[in-house]
Amino acid sequence: MPRTAPLVYTPGHHPKSEAWILPRGPALLRRGKLIVVEGIDGSGKSTQIKLLHKWLEAHGHQVVFTEWNSSDLVRQATKRGKKKNLLTPTTFSLLHATDFADRLTYRIIPYLKSGMTVLADRYIYTAFARDIARGVDPRWVRDLYGFAVQPDAIFYFRVPIDVAVGRIVGSRAKIKFYEAGMDLRLSPEPVESFRLFQGRVLDEYDRLAVEYGFQVIDGTKPIDTQQQQVRSKVSRLYSQQAAEA
Amino acid sequence: MPRTAPLVYTPGHHPKSEAWILPRGPALLRRGKLIVVEGIDGSGKSTQIKLLHKWLEAHGHQVVFTEWNSSDLVRQATKRGKKKNLLTPTTFSLLHATDFADRLTYRIIPYLKSGMTVLADRYIYTAFARDIARGVDPRWVRDLYGFAVQPDAIFYFRVPIDVAVGRIVGSRAKIKFYEAGMDLRLSPEPVESFRLFQGRVLDEYDRLAVEYGFQVIDGTKPIDTQQQQVRSKVSRLYSQQAAEA
Repeated sequence: MPRTAPLVYTPGHHPKSEAWILPRGPALLRRGKLIVVEGIDGSGKSTQIKLLHKWLEAHGHQVVFTEWNSSDLVRQATKRGKKKNLLTPTTFSLLHATDFADRLTYRIIPYLKSGMTVLADRYIYTAFARDIARGVDPRWVRDLYGFAVQPDAIFYFRVPIDVAVGRIVGSRAKIKFYEAGMDLRLSPEPVESFRLFQGRVLDEYDRLAVEYGFQVIDGTKPIDTQQQQVRSKVSRLYSQQAAEA
Repeated sequence: MPRTAPLVYTPGHHPKSEAWILPRGPALLRRGKLIVVEGIDGSGKSTQIKLLHKWLEAHGHQVVFTEWNSSDLVRQATKRGKKKNLLTPTTFSLLHATDFADRLTYRIIPYLKSGMTVLADRYIYTAFARDIARGVDPRWVRDLYGFAVQPDAIFYFRVPIDVAVGRIVGSRAKIKFYEAGMDLRLSPEPVESFRLFQGRVLDEYDRLAVEYGFQVIDGTKPIDTQQQQVRSKVSRLYSQQAAEA
């Protein structure tokens, strides 16, 4: 029987003892699956996770969806900071980590504990890729998210930078300031800044893919082809679980 | 001539190179002094820093004052989270770190660079002591604040827990939920919870005092006696600077 471990602290447990309660999540008792999609803007990952969501529900799974930067706790702060271009890379990073911690506590862990499937559009790897692309220390940001729960699958939708730029420029009226990394002053021109910044993010993702064992999906392939690959892998996740039960 | 180092990142510097930009502050070029007071609630540190503030101004120094948890960026979020008792130790810690990062960027570093004296009522050691008392991993929280600037002096006003409790209970209508560590459920009774939680914080401060070389001031001594000790040390800081110049 798996040992139930507290996520962050044990009330009444005095930290003076040797057994520090680590803000680390892997010992979390859980029965549900955590499935994550990652990729640069314009990679098509959101389309894929929506298709997966419908498919899982059609097969009788209880599924919840959660996306990056969506906790009520710091939404206003993030919005205000972004609007006024007040955020340094460190503040930017910390605001997102706070958002994530709140979301993990209320929107991810309870569902995993209750046996539901959690689909996350972006997870800690988004923070790693973007923050490192902003010049934040790679070790610092990894430590920062040390409290996160390990996903069961990480799908990385990989597209060349020109494909992503084409999709974003083609589909939207305006590229957002931070999305284009305009705070880094790589170029005064938004599309060029987007290309340069997202190019850095892409490089980071490629490194993270190796380090964390991402399932790499070719995001230039037809939507259906990609979705078949995703479903095939997800099916194996559930059949493994059934075999173990 | 001291080397000017960027605090967080160099625009245009690609993180692929070996020279990672660390989110660490010690290389900051600065001419002003950063003077910090620390201690548990009811230790008398705020009274002491106010007296120091007046004295420094009377002696012709340009002084700015900054206090814990006061950045506009996340004030609303912190207030809301606290009001609804929604904060876990990790979220609590991250919100305060975000607040601190914002304050460091806009309310501390520019003044230090311009040669002014910054007086801080609470600094990163408050986060260390409180977060560790809440069960957060001591190494994690130290890494979290790795971007902070080293103070020139840290005054620690030390009072036994009973003195602090007496002062707080005597002076205020109500002890606040998080101040009393009620989130840890050490006791359902606010005053008793305050005593237990602040007792832990006190233990942490005593450890930090050794680790970081705090100037320990006996907070049970008369106000004037304490202030004389503070002024004497601060005077030496300025005369050292004058001698080096």
